[in-house]
Amino acid sequence: MRPGDRLEIHLPAGFRFSAGSAGIKASGRPDLALVESAPATTATAMFTSNRVVAAPIEVGRESLLASRGRVRALIVNSGNANCATGPAGIRNCKAVCSALAGLLQVSPQEVFPSSTGIIGVPLPVEKVVSQLPELVAKRAATHKAVRAFAEAIMTTDTKPKIASARFVANHRTINMLGIAKGSGMIHPQLATMLVYLFTDLVATPAQLKRLLRNTCSGTFNCISVDGDTSTNDTVLLMASGESGVHVRDAAVEAKFHNALLGVCRSLSEQIVADGEGVKHVVRLKIEQARTRDEAMQIARTIAHSLLVKTAFAGADPNWGRILAAVGRSGVPVNPRRVNIFIGSELVCRGGVSLPFPAIKVHAEMSKPNYEIRIRLGRGRATATYLTTDLTTDYVRINAEYST
Amino acid sequence: MRPGDRLEIHLPAGFRFSAGSAGIKASGRPDLALVESAPATTATAMFTSNRVVAAPIEVGRESLLASRGRVRALIVNSGNANCATGPAGIRNCKAVCSALAGLLQVSPQEVFPSSTGIIGVPLPVEKVVSQLPELVAKRAATHKAVRAFAEAIMTTDTKPKIASARFVANHRTINMLGIAKGSGMIHPQLATMLVYLFTDLVATPAQLKRLLRNTCSGTFNCISVDGDTSTNDTVLLMASGESGVHVRDAAVEAKFHNALLGVCRSLSEQIVADGEGVKHVVRLKIEQARTRDEAMQIARTIAHSLLVKTAFAGADPNWGRILAAVGRSGVPVNPRRVNIFIGSELVCRGGVSLPFPAIKVHAEMSKPNYEIRIRLGRGRATATYLTTDLTTDYVRINAEYST
Repeated sequence: MRPGDRLEIHLPAGFRFSAGSAGIKASGRPDLALVESAPATTATAMFTSNRVVAAPIEVGRESLLASRGRVRALIVNSGNANCATGPAGIRNCKAVCSALAGLLQVSPQEVFPSSTGIIGVPLPVEKVVSQLPELVAKRAATHKAVRAFAEAIMTTDTKPKIASARFVANHRTINMLGIAKGSGMIHPQLATMLVYLFTDLVATPAQLKRLLRNTCSGTFNCISVDGDTSTNDTVLLMASGESGVHVRDAAVEAKFHNALLGVCRSLSEQIVADGEGVKHVVRLKIEQARTRDEAMQIARTIAHSLLVKTAFAGADPNWGRILAAVGRSGVPVNPRRVNIFIGSELVCRGGVSLPFPAIKVHAEMSKPNYEIRIRLGRGRATATYLTTDLTTDYVRINAEYST
Repeated sequence: MRPGDRLEIHLPAGFRFSAGSAGIKASGRPDLALVESAPATTATAMFTSNRVVAAPIEVGRESLLASRGRVRALIVNSGNANCATGPAGIRNCKAVCSALAGLLQVSPQEVFPSSTGIIGVPLPVEKVVSQLPELVAKRAATHKAVRAFAEAIMTTDTKPKIASARFVANHRTINMLGIAKGSGMIHPQLATMLVYLFTDLVATPAQLKRLLRNTCSGTFNCISVDGDTSTNDTVLLMASGESGVHVRDAAVEAKFHNALLGVCRSLSEQIVADGEGVKHVVRLKIEQARTRDEAMQIARTIAHSLLVKTAFAGADPNWGRILAAVGRSGVPVNPRRVNIFIGSELVCRGGVSLPFPAIKVHAEMSKPNYEIRIRLGRGRATATYLTTDLTTDYVRINAEYST
């Protein structure tokens, strides 16, 4: 599953989707999206690590606690992040949840909210609420409705992001669907990564939580476009239970984990590849680290280095910048044991320059996707991290603003 | 003392300067610079925190230890960083020091080396050595020689960086001179900050060390253009003792510290303002932090945020990006207590948006230098940090490369 792949959608039973335009976006494009789920649905969520969090994050976190991981509906608006909006922001968010709960005859705590868009601007709550009846009326378990949902949650994204998987367990087919938005950056305000994962497996919220945490650490936590963390980032996993197959069986769990990982990996790659101004997606493989933590620390330092990212933009085999980033990562690396490969070519051995076919390496770095391997000679731990180049387009997009 | 100010040069007694062209730079521009100092000269140095260090850093550190802080000469080449060059790099560096020591009849350990320029390329040691006799012959204690030295150590710098101060202590005049290079970034390889500080005060290496460490923490360690740390960064402080005035007197120390701080602050500002592509230098003032460390941590996170830096490029009063950087800094800040000022205007109160005169704030942010204050409401510690915008020019310059 690679960015851009056209995937078949395997619709998990127990979910109905819809989308519409509430007029939050000045463009009039779709900006409101709904999922309704079956009565037995369990859920777990992971939120931004930013101390500054938007109102829907606070409300969603409280609701999941209060409902003990029961979710009957998901309501997402784009065009307004409902962040830095104070107590009024919380009231507005709860008003939307309550209105939807009334229409669906569920508890307000079973409605999970998300917002993405401009920050510091009050959410136009009447516009949202008045659009809800139509959204509820047209909800459907169709591919078309899934695509409409994926499009309505977009902000700076240039394409909708969907990934899907299925597997057979206990003679039944289990479906897995993921929908995401996020292009890792912001125009004109903070971008947000929102990820919604749906399955028809039976699972407790605790089981979902453990699996989701484990999956995120190797996927959504291993991507970077600009190193900034949004105030609204959310990953929500919902299990309708409609397949009747329970995840507690170890064989089922293994298959489910695998499907979840595949879907999350694909969505991660789609998010990175859709970063504004991005021309190259680079897979950093850190090898021979002492621990995974130190491998991740080095990966993050390289992934966020402006000098490395601008070298990527120029398809410049400037391994000195990579080596210097390793050196300032805070990990006590011995540079004399560091080997760096660009694609299959060894360009730095033992921290020292090495003659290499520059034209071939430049050609490798001109591809939209390629790999750089850094061997540390310290141990056996590894980490893989997706990063991007930094282009003049990125700066132009993020510097433009009309006050 | 602000960037661009034309400062009078106060030449400390006991130092002679010269510069020349050894042909390391393909352009034929000056690339070799020498300082010879009086026999009683003491010195201390601070080096890059990068684990990957260039040969001159290793040699210089060893020599200072071996000579117990005695330095009789400083030899700097630009155009080649002598980094990632392995054992041959160390041998080449020592060969240059030995050749110069022979000419000046001092110990090789009393010669302090520096290099800046491209990494991973062997230092053309014969070219350097053959130029040394001419350099030694023309050394002089003149303003012209100081300027020639400052120009010969430049790489991507667009202007030489000199700052000077003088003060009277014990009825004598003490002079302080600083020369630096560095524009915070790299073309085509790693940029380096080199700072040389000269005084005619009497001081032990230990006294110099304490004063230099203290001064750097508030000046060179509080600036950022791109967040990358060079493999060659060096700050060297030399005291010739020629004034006969000793720093051990508390009143003298206070005056000297003040002069040192002024010179280092000016050089810091000159380095930041000369960052390639830089159009705006922003002074971040973090106030009401619990400790200086946490104030610095927040300052660094804001200073390095791509979203904040691109907003600066567009003179965009996008305080949401600043608040979000505070939130992800790792300091347990309560966003509801955060106030943000751009210039004199309060733009965010208690973490919430506030109507503000956008045109006035945009005008403030259009200035080449301005201030942003972030009040945390946690305590009484502060930090000041200089950062820059990130422009398309920066990316263009750092992405260009000919393999």
